Amino acid sequence: MTKTQTKNFLTYPASQKLEKLAEHPINLSEAGVLTPERLGHFYAEGCGYRLLFGTEQVTDEVVNALKQLAIETKAIEKMTQMQNGEVVNKIENYPSENRPALHTATRDLFNHPRTAKSAKEASAKAKSEIDKLKKFLGKIDTDKKFKEIITIGIGGSDLGPRANYIALEPYLKPNRKVHFISNVDPDDAAAVLKSVTDLKNTLVIVISKSGTTLETAVNEELVAMKFREKGLNPKDHFISITQPGTPMDNRDKYMETFHVWEWIGGRYSSTSMVGGVMLSFAFGFDVYLEFLRGAHAMDETALQSDPMKNLPLLSALLTIWNRNFLSYPTVALIPYSQALLRYPAHIQQVAMESNGKYIDKQGQFVDYKTGPIIWGEPGTNAQHSFFQLLHQGTDTVPVFMVGFKHSQFDQDAEIQGTTSQEKLLGNMFAQSIALATGQKSDNPGKFFPGNRPTSILLGNRLTPYALGALLSFFENRVDFEGFILDINSFDQEGVELGKVLAKRIISRIATQHGKGKEPSYPLGDAYLKHLDGFS
Amino acid sequence: MTKTQTKNFLTYPASQKLEKLAEHPINLSEAGVLTPERLGHFYAEGCGYRLLFGTEQVTDEVVNALKQLAIETKAIEKMTQMQNGEVVNKIENYPSENRPALHTATRDLFNHPRTAKSAKEASAKAKSEIDKLKKFLGKIDTDKKFKEIITIGIGGSDLGPRANYIALEPYLKPNRKVHFISNVDPDDAAAVLKSVTDLKNTLVIVISKSGTTLETAVNEELVAMKFREKGLNPKDHFISITQPGTPMDNRDKYMETFHVWEWIGGRYSSTSMVGGVMLSFAFGFDVYLEFLRGAHAMDETALQSDPMKNLPLLSALLTIWNRNFLSYPTVALIPYSQALLRYPAHIQQVAMESNGKYIDKQGQFVDYKTGPIIWGEPGTNAQHSFFQLLHQGTDTVPVFMVGFKHSQFDQDAEIQGTTSQEKLLGNMFAQSIALATGQKSDNPGKFFPGNRPTSILLGNRLTPYALGALLSFFENRVDFEGFILDINSFDQEGVELGKVLAKRIISRIATQHGKGKEPSYPLGDAYLKHLDGFS
Repeated sequence: MTKTQTKNFLTYPASQKLEKLAEHPINLSEAGVLTPERLGHFYAEGCGYRLLFGTEQVTDEVVNALKQLAIETKAIEKMTQMQNGEVVNKIENYPSENRPALHTATRDLFNHPRTAKSAKEASAKAKSEIDKLKKFLGKIDTDKKFKEIITIGIGGSDLGPRANYIALEPYLKPNRKVHFISNVDPDDAAAVLKSVTDLKNTLVIVISKSGTTLETAVNEELVAMKFREKGLNPKDHFISITQPGTPMDNRDKYMETFHVWEWIGGRYSSTSMVGGVMLSFAFGFDVYLEFLRGAHAMDETALQSDPMKNLPLLSALLTIWNRNFLSYPTVALIPYSQALLRYPAHIQQVAMESNGKYIDKQGQFVDYKTGPIIWGEPGTNAQHSFFQLLHQGTDTVPVFMVGFKHSQFDQDAEIQGTTSQEKLLGNMFAQSIALATGQKSDNPGKFFPGNRPTSILLGNRLTPYALGALLSFFENRVDFEGFILDINSFDQEGVELGKVLAKRIISRIATQHGKGKEPSYPLGDAYLKHLDGFS
Repeated sequence: MTKTQTKNFLTYPASQKLEKLAEHPINLSEAGVLTPERLGHFYAEGCGYRLLFGTEQVTDEVVNALKQLAIETKAIEKMTQMQNGEVVNKIENYPSENRPALHTATRDLFNHPRTAKSAKEASAKAKSEIDKLKKFLGKIDTDKKFKEIITIGIGGSDLGPRANYIALEPYLKPNRKVHFISNVDPDDAAAVLKSVTDLKNTLVIVISKSGTTLETAVNEELVAMKFREKGLNPKDHFISITQPGTPMDNRDKYMETFHVWEWIGGRYSSTSMVGGVMLSFAFGFDVYLEFLRGAHAMDETALQSDPMKNLPLLSALLTIWNRNFLSYPTVALIPYSQALLRYPAHIQQVAMESNGKYIDKQGQFVDYKTGPIIWGEPGTNAQHSFFQLLHQGTDTVPVFMVGFKHSQFDQDAEIQGTTSQEKLLGNMFAQSIALATGQKSDNPGKFFPGNRPTSILLGNRLTPYALGALLSFFENRVDFEGFILDINSFDQEGVELGKVLAKRIISRIATQHGKGKEPSYPLGDAYLKHLDGFS
């Protein structure tokens, strides 16, 4: 493959300006740089959140160049195209998925709906599934048969829904219980099946966009076997969520079927039925609607042309500054909120599956970095874990913090003059300052280099609305990064090769059992031979 | 601070040889490089595990140079010193903690115990706590009062114990339930308190080595308030685990107190009482002993001078090859085992808090990289999440996989000729091959560059013994990395600054409430002012 470059991310005037600025970035640890005025100056507001970025390695000049980059790369135009349903999931000149990315349509049901034809049609489809869901839930409430659900799905059909479930757990309706099975590891299903109170009262939601996901099909069968063992007919308990026309779109097999469509990527599907059925069952339909309302509000914010009013865009620009100009390869995502326990894992997928790419939208190999590695754990827990490396390791890790003024439960107590929530916020702010300023000392063990950048996304309280807005903030931030870097954030070709080779090895095992016909796969066999070393 | 270097990691002859070899490393994606013979050749065995490393970017020459590095850096000598109880937690020429790191003594209770005086004394102390625990548990079994426990701890007092609890959950005794509170976020405690069946039957374990950890003290008080509300006396329910002489070493306040000592770092404490009390309560004393037995067996393996028989050392050398010579900044830890769900978070702490350092043992600033960033999620889940970036992102991420021949529960079913466990293993092996070989294609979207290194640690079944061995494998690997890189893996000076600044901000909040006397902290105040933007 020849590596030819035409117009490319690095050739924009703003990129070149930023490259220059990155040669001598501001040093936050120098005396007088981090001031109260600076912390008061660098922030933006939108959709109920504030983004505080006085502890990023930026100056007004850098921020202006980043704004210019957004203009030159037509970031807002591309976001508008995406939300309007134009074909943004595409690589020019090569076979590709060639379709819109319209996850925003699944929540475009409130004020100012998009008027473009493709978007309108999509949100009408989404609306009809929501109506179907409302009816379905009404029946469940009347029948009072189902008290627990097991959702079976993996990747985008698991991480987002599960992260949102955990975030909203205090809203759980009485007499409702939710279980998740994802991994093909049989211990996953076994543990869940052990913890279910009574299969008789259990609804099973099987989620696979393609209707053919290996892990999901196998786990569905494992769970169905348990139902049959108990004399229960899976058809009276199982519903499916899939695309129209897949093997799982089958009312002969499932009590009910809800649809998603090819224009929603798995990792972007948690506001669709993929997340919606479970969230509504667990928390009630109104909570789900509030969640959608918040997501939609942030989608609208993402169309604001001024980055200072457009938090996802501003945060995308700051991410690109850190990744592409200051060359930091990873970002630590630290929610100072125990409810957001699994948000790092979900956003890890949204970001890394979307922007872990090495070709641009023309199919050319990029000569710049694409999406960073995202990893993290909640604070303050993380402070007692890997923050040592953040403060005194040999690499710089930009940190993205999320926090809320109020706790979710409001079950708090004042101890020594402050509540736990205040202590939590105190820690978040303190870490941001400590990472920036560092500390001088003659004892090298007590010396902190500082100049390690952070952003803080601050909200009021983690309500269903605020959670929807937060989800959409991250989705749109990731998409902006893709638009600006000129990559396709909506496909995932990189997961295919592993699947193909796994099938070959699994077929080899079946063949060894006399139940398959894979004649030979020497590399796979070499690995399987190592298993003979065990009893 | 002047940056002077005397003898340093990069000056060893083996380091220089490795630097040369790293200029032209083997390319695993080239035709004919990755062969069945190679996969059969590059492996080592010890303590019930095999380490498969044919998909690392190594040749025999590289492996030999790494072995030479272990000799030149006196890796085994230093490990022996550590296990013997010499003062390894030390920075020369500067004030430092200046003490042994004897976590291995907490399990040195079986065959071939260490005979050095310091180690013998430490294991005698550990043994007496174990005897005390056995008696305590006997009483609990007789009284039948306690059915649930809440453990309160953070960082090392939480991550390891919790990861081990999740890993062994199928062994849970009937009528036993375990809850964990860690975060100062009040929602954490509130959620747990909501899920406890009956405080009357609940034992609370408060864990803090120093006896003064902010989060733990606050959560203890929150929980104690709940007990008092129900008319229960915390003293009849609370036990503590702490160092002798701390504020928590107080039999007037606690029903029982178990000890740890200054020679066990928090992150290395999960085989001590910090993990032991909870594990024994949940799974029985015998399970805890088996876990210790496995850990001890791997500690003995870690003393083998031949890296081909010493898995922790071999894996440390390969980690250093990837990090220091091939310059890969992170490692993805992917357990192909749902039971190991939280192992990435635990090992993240063990590794990053130990080796996220920038000074060597002489207190000089290093001019080479220290410990990498460790992050990850279980496979196959991770395949459906961030593996896109691993396969096609612009950065190379070495992957460390852990898998087992057999599932833990053995509740499995053959579907289409193979069990779920076989499908799980098939996926693990396939990913290792796919990441190494990549795939040529004229469609750039279907092109995989390959040459992305992996190791696989393969075991038989995740029993308590195997879990102990696995824990010890990682602990010893991390320590070997520290020994070879000449850093102190046993202190954590980098967490202090954030604590100090957090206290100042929290005091400012208390002062604003009229309950403190922090006169002014302008940077903290600038952040607090942003909270006024919310209702």
